[in-house]
Amino acid sequence: MKSGVMVMIEAETIVSSSNESEMPAPGGERSVHRGARADYRWNGVELKPYKEDDRALFKSITRQVLFSDPELDGELRYFEVAPGGFSTLERHEHMHAVLVLRGRGDCLVGTQVKALETRDLVTVPPLTWHQFRASKGEPLGFLCMVNARRDKPQLPSAADLAQLKTDPIIAAFLSADP
Amino acid sequence: MKSGVMVMIEAETIVSSSNESEMPAPGGERSVHRGARADYRWNGVELKPYKEDDRALFKSITRQVLFSDPELDGELRYFEVAPGGFSTLERHEHMHAVLVLRGRGDCLVGTQVKALETRDLVTVPPLTWHQFRASKGEPLGFLCMVNARRDKPQLPSAADLAQLKTDPIIAAFLSADP
Repeated sequence: MKSGVMVMIEAETIVSSSNESEMPAPGGERSVHRGARADYRWNGVELKPYKEDDRALFKSITRQVLFSDPELDGELRYFEVAPGGFSTLERHEHMHAVLVLRGRGDCLVGTQVKALETRDLVTVPPLTWHQFRASKGEPLGFLCMVNARRDKPQLPSAADLAQLKTDPIIAAFLSADP
Repeated sequence: MKSGVMVMIEAETIVSSSNESEMPAPGGERSVHRGARADYRWNGVELKPYKEDDRALFKSITRQVLFSDPELDGELRYFEVAPGGFSTLERHEHMHAVLVLRGRGDCLVGTQVKALETRDLVTVPPLTWHQFRASKGEPLGFLCMVNARRDKPQLPSAADLAQLKTDPIIAAFLSADP
């Protein structure tokens, strides 16, 4: 059952994963087993840029799409933030379901800043500002499950940022921004 | 885009996750952060029996539902097979997207038997017989992403089993069955 919020997204903001290059070719072979390699890489999985969106602010982060298939309603991606790096501060209607696979760091979700240890779980509810930071001098790698059909991220306005920074804990979290 | 096969499932075989006790209460609070505990447990995540289905044959396996939410089209579960244990040999229309989180073991997917190391990826295509075994004297723990809306597993008939065991590699894989 979907909430009423979800169906109010305008049609043009929905991006179907079938438009993305990470999808297997229709009718293409599925690889039953893809072995893990050193340094959190996998056989048959491409290391991708984190974002193609030039407007988004981020630093030292890569993306690997582990599972994306026309038969799967979810996708599973692995993001890795190098020490000192961070993901885009953004929000969207779709949720993030995150499991920390490697290292430690911090995250902002809504108004909460949380220290993250390996295997911790993070839930990003709809329309909630969030950011992940490799703030502990080591990589922060995490799995992120999303809906295959999902809306595009929204970036904060100057007013949104100012509002967030009225909280001193959030201001400190964001203070590493250039 | 769904394949033609998916829409041919009879309505009564579809189980919606909204019927399961692992769903958050409608309107209930989402926990933004759930810390990892020792031994691959998590705060706020219940350790569940693997199956409620008495007909299914399995041994020494537990289930934890890490993410299941009305807004998520996928679910992420963690299964752990104790040394010597195994999951049910089954197939279904829905896919499994698996990442080995702990230990080592083996799996059967279709006609392929694969040795599994930590962080290996396994894709179980629709209607493909599969089983996971902790065959290496250590636990085999794995994440499994599935569609929230999915059909019920099918168990092999005696004829299906006999057919599978005509392959000596599969017969050896299955030989630990009581």
